[in-house]
Amino acid sequence: MSQAAPPDPLARELFEQIASWPIYDPHSHIDAHRPASRNLDEVLGYHYYTELAHSAGMPAAEVDPGLPPQQRARNLARHLHRIDNTVQYSWLLEIARTFFGFQGDRIDADSIDDLYRLADHSAAGAGEAWDRSVWETTNLEAVFLTNEFDDPLEGWDTSKYVPCLRTDDLVLKLHEPRTIQRLQASTNVDVGDVKSLRLAIAALFEYFVERGARACAISLPPDFVPRRATPVASQNSVRRAITHMDLRPDEHEEVRTLVFWTLAELCAEWNLPFDLMIGPIRNVYPGGVAGGRDLFDRRVSLHDYAVLFTHFPGVSFPVSTLSPDAGAELVAFSWIFPNVVPNGHWWYSNVPAFIAADLKARLQAVPKTKLVGYYSDAYKLEFVLPKFNMYRRLLAEFLAEDCVRGRGWSADRALELARLVLLENPRRLFQRPGGGAG
Amino acid sequence: MSQAAPPDPLARELFEQIASWPIYDPHSHIDAHRPASRNLDEVLGYHYYTELAHSAGMPAAEVDPGLPPQQRARNLARHLHRIDNTVQYSWLLEIARTFFGFQGDRIDADSIDDLYRLADHSAAGAGEAWDRSVWETTNLEAVFLTNEFDDPLEGWDTSKYVPCLRTDDLVLKLHEPRTIQRLQASTNVDVGDVKSLRLAIAALFEYFVERGARACAISLPPDFVPRRATPVASQNSVRRAITHMDLRPDEHEEVRTLVFWTLAELCAEWNLPFDLMIGPIRNVYPGGVAGGRDLFDRRVSLHDYAVLFTHFPGVSFPVSTLSPDAGAELVAFSWIFPNVVPNGHWWYSNVPAFIAADLKARLQAVPKTKLVGYYSDAYKLEFVLPKFNMYRRLLAEFLAEDCVRGRGWSADRALELARLVLLENPRRLFQRPGGGAG
Amino acid sequence: MSQAAPPDPLARELFEQIASWPIYDPHSHIDAHRPASRNLDEVLGYHYYTELAHSAGMPAAEVDPGLPPQQRARNLARHLHRIDNTVQYSWLLEIARTFFGFQGDRIDADSIDDLYRLADHSAAGAGEAWDRSVWETTNLEAVFLTNEFDDPLEGWDTSKYVPCLRTDDLVLKLHEPRTIQRLQASTNVDVGDVKSLRLAIAALFEYFVERGARACAISLPPDFVPRRATPVASQNSVRRAITHMDLRPDEHEEVRTLVFWTLAELCAEWNLPFDLMIGPIRNVYPGGVAGGRDLFDRRVSLHDYAVLFTHFPGVSFPVSTLSPDAGAELVAFSWIFPNVVPNGHWWYSNVPAFIAADLKARLQAVPKTKLVGYYSDAYKLEFVLPKFNMYRRLLAEFLAEDCVRGRGWSADRALELARLVLLENPRRLFQRPGGGAG
Ligand SMILES: [Zn+2]
Ligand SMILES: [Zn+2]
Ligand SMILES: [Zn+2]
Repeated sequence: MSQAAPPDPLARELFEQIASWPIYDPHSHIDAHRPASRNLDEVLGYHYYTELAHSAGMPAAEVDPGLPPQQRARNLARHLHRIDNTVQYSWLLEIARTFFGFQGDRIDADSIDDLYRLADHSAAGAGEAWDRSVWETTNLEAVFLTNEFDDPLEGWDTSKYVPCLRTDDLVLKLHEPRTIQRLQASTNVDVGDVKSLRLAIAALFEYFVERGARACAISLPPDFVPRRATPVASQNSVRRAITHMDLRPDEHEEVRTLVFWTLAELCAEWNLPFDLMIGPIRNVYPGGVAGGRDLFDRRVSLHDYAVLFTHFPGVSFPVSTLSPDAGAELVAFSWIFPNVVPNGHWWYSNVPAFIAADLKARLQAVPKTKLVGYYSDAYKLEFVLPKFNMYRRLLAEFLAEDCVRGRGWSADRALELARLVLLENPRRLFQRPGGGAG
Repeated sequence: MSQAAPPDPLARELFEQIASWPIYDPHSHIDAHRPASRNLDEVLGYHYYTELAHSAGMPAAEVDPGLPPQQRARNLARHLHRIDNTVQYSWLLEIARTFFGFQGDRIDADSIDDLYRLADHSAAGAGEAWDRSVWETTNLEAVFLTNEFDDPLEGWDTSKYVPCLRTDDLVLKLHEPRTIQRLQASTNVDVGDVKSLRLAIAALFEYFVERGARACAISLPPDFVPRRATPVASQNSVRRAITHMDLRPDEHEEVRTLVFWTLAELCAEWNLPFDLMIGPIRNVYPGGVAGGRDLFDRRVSLHDYAVLFTHFPGVSFPVSTLSPDAGAELVAFSWIFPNVVPNGHWWYSNVPAFIAADLKARLQAVPKTKLVGYYSDAYKLEFVLPKFNMYRRLLAEFLAEDCVRGRGWSADRALELARLVLLENPRRLFQRPGGGAG
Repeated sequence: MSQAAPPDPLARELFEQIASWPIYDPHSHIDAHRPASRNLDEVLGYHYYTELAHSAGMPAAEVDPGLPPQQRARNLARHLHRIDNTVQYSWLLEIARTFFGFQGDRIDADSIDDLYRLADHSAAGAGEAWDRSVWETTNLEAVFLTNEFDDPLEGWDTSKYVPCLRTDDLVLKLHEPRTIQRLQASTNVDVGDVKSLRLAIAALFEYFVERGARACAISLPPDFVPRRATPVASQNSVRRAITHMDLRPDEHEEVRTLVFWTLAELCAEWNLPFDLMIGPIRNVYPGGVAGGRDLFDRRVSLHDYAVLFTHFPGVSFPVSTLSPDAGAELVAFSWIFPNVVPNGHWWYSNVPAFIAADLKARLQAVPKTKLVGYYSDAYKLEFVLPKFNMYRRLLAEFLAEDCVRGRGWSADRALELARLVLLENPRRLFQRPGGGAG
């Protein structure tokens, strides 16, 4: 039985059932060409471990990309005891035990070499077998990817590794030379003005949808405010961005507004959900380790997005908010807007204390058919299971306490709710455009 | 025993006691001329059901006011299974069972016609008997109304259905022609400037207090900031508003500032509590169903109101905040300002997860004599009981866990605290001006 | 056994262990010359009691400083029953029982004279013995003080009563004549410009560190935003401040920015932690009792401090935030920035409901070696024990539920974590600069 099983007998019973289901994971950063790890360094390289160890005093140089992988793992291991209280550490331990056959209680300087050996799948041909093995142990049904807009999307089964069009660069970095180059290279559209820009982005949608993409996604900083695009008025700013001229702040704003609105229009056209991940500010802490430099400003409100939700009633917006204290607002907006869907528990909010509170409010106040319980956000396949198990446990505890004991529901009724939230809702909301569930 | 009773035996025991008390409900939208429902459509028409069903996919047309009532009920019923996880659905089920003798477990397309029949009190003369029956089953002592300023307040027992002067229109819509017309018609004051405006509003206070009003109330948007009125300087803006001329934003602000401050002065004069409901923004989602279009911006702070609380030490301000994450700030302001009273759990914050957290902090950190536990905010009398039972249960659970088990209190001491919060405080705080408790 | 012991048997067992340890208290307002109370009035004079009683209706005049102490105590006692639900009242009861031998259940008008007599240590020589007795009963290892910058720091054992340089006046009130006078008097530096100002402040650091200071501390209003100092550009503003000329808002800002940044530089130089207490606005409610006039604006974000944390990687910043809803952001910033340490639970956030939520998130997501569990913020020594016991209980409850039952830890492992958070981390983080732990 999973170490994630809750102590309460009723919750444990529900958890066992839920843990026997397949996992449908609607957002990750898995590389479809190399989904599972080849060695422990690829597991320990997850930013949570490097950033928490760094936060606890490890110099960034100890996990420098230039070091040999096992050395990086050893270096990190010497700091893991300082973060063995964290939920992130518990994922690591569950991975080590479930996937690597680790028997110990602690991953530290003493056990790291053993574990490194157990986790090694770097031999020729071993990797693909390991990918399949992790997929099966995880009982994974589908996992969504995060694909750059110029990803050719070739070489994997897109019904299992589902493409997702990530659009941060288009909206936030259109003025950077590489963005336009990549856009032109991937679409063969000569981008010079608002009209050709739109044609190019439309070509991306066509390409992605044809290759099985089932969502468009973006992460947006707290100061971004969606506004209806004004293509004619924005023509000049867009031209300046495309030709890499310096932009005034208001011109920048015009460009990102226009591109963002265009994306929403194309989501409507192609019937793609538009995942909004609201809140991060990039590189707040430039001294941090790779992947551990972003934070947020908690002064953010979904009210800024009301105009977007209103204008695109036909687009489904699965929304994740970054600041844990913004979770209650998402409940209210999901309760009113038919097209706003509370989506998982993201990054700095992906901590049991915050998940439990958000999950409770959502399950008490948002229509059950709109809840997308969880996504892994994983970079390596091994993380899908322990992260989902963390959520499954919190869900089982809520169902036991609030629904079965609290409202007198049968266990079956509670499990029906869990099944909706974990499987049926995401399958339906992210189904193949124009077709049945994937 | 109520289905709302908590599973923990000690909490259940406390709940049973508390549930046997009368209910004193200091804020509702009950129509004193027609307090209980005449048919099920009037129950299902509560905005929670239409907005949640709409959020879950029901087209607004299915509950169009032009449809026959039973058709609307049937239409809505086909969508209720999608929201049967919500606390709002649980109120409905409790109403069906407690008041209508419904025996089923689910209100859906199959059971709706039966329930509609059970809930029918539309026969001539049946309505009044039904009003009395619901009042008695609820064990209601008094329920506060929400009366437009030109309500004649005639035709009911104002010691049971207590008038309350609602002032949103005066503050926020003074510039609309109908507001001034209504004000002149109801006061016989010829309103032309700051002075006559104040005379007219004073006349409203006199009228309302004479007819038993025990509170003045208003809901205010997040961008409203109370400021000391400047009658002379604002003269011009007020004149322009009264004569329906276009106002600049700063003139608008001057007008609403002046009227709001005038209301506070008159509350001081007439010894009326001034209920502040802080946060809603109207019509954020124009595509929503009636009553389901308002939301908020969570970036709001009671600090904006400090100048008001300071200036009117003699006015009691029962305060409700809309954004769930603003609840902790209300605890701090209630703990410092003698005239700030945390008032119930409002609308988007009226969800068990949020109530439980707020209730706990208030009962741990605000003087017990200042807590107004709950109000129903109901539009129909049937909702008072299930909504209060939801609160009573959370209160009983807090008392069992935190006070009896946690601090070693006797059950009697815990019940004394409950009695204060539910009955004695609201009776005292909202007593008839100049008289004893109502 | 302490009345603070939790009801759950496992949590109680952990609590008993934890309660047997010494207390290391890294922030208080204790007067080292007169640490414990001499009479009950000095206990009841703690702002929590006067402000809560005032909030519940007591006129400020009843605790006027001009009244005889016993009269003040009697006056206050007549209002205590209205706040006997609060956690602050429970500290009082624990003090009365633990230190004064009080046997009753309530402190009120009936029992106040008895208690006053029991708490009297005003006889010649009795005070010092009482100080030692409270110290020993509390099992106190060290308590940090809050010393004005011109405190001579003489006359006590600074390894027990640890000096801490409080700098609010320097940053926020440099323009007030008394500040410069005091600065010149205490440093013998003739302060006339940026350079001499810095010399004077550097002299304070030298003086404080030589006399055992182990932290610099400041409380900052929500509108303060740290910025890199610009000594040359700020020269004029600083000169105007020093000569008490009127300052424009931007000049004010320049002055406080410069002084604050200088403090951070000197903390780096002297290897002193810089305690940041973020959020209070002074005198929000001028009508309040002494110490009960400050509040906050919840619209505040640590993002404003990112530039500071980034610029001074070598300075440890123990951070307390005032608005309870800002706690989750502190978790995220502590998880990323190596030099940001979540520090205790402060003032309006120091309520079990808020502590329990914050403690849980911190222990789940911040490296365990960075957590400073609690400080008393006490003005009199008697408060250290009940306040720490409140925290110890919440910690024991978390460990029992989340770690032992929830994760299968042994009790010993849970206690190791508690020991880090309560003792080893603060000892290490606040150790004597250049030396071993104090
Ligand atoms: Zn992601
Ligand atoms: Zn209302
Ligand atoms: Zn302090």
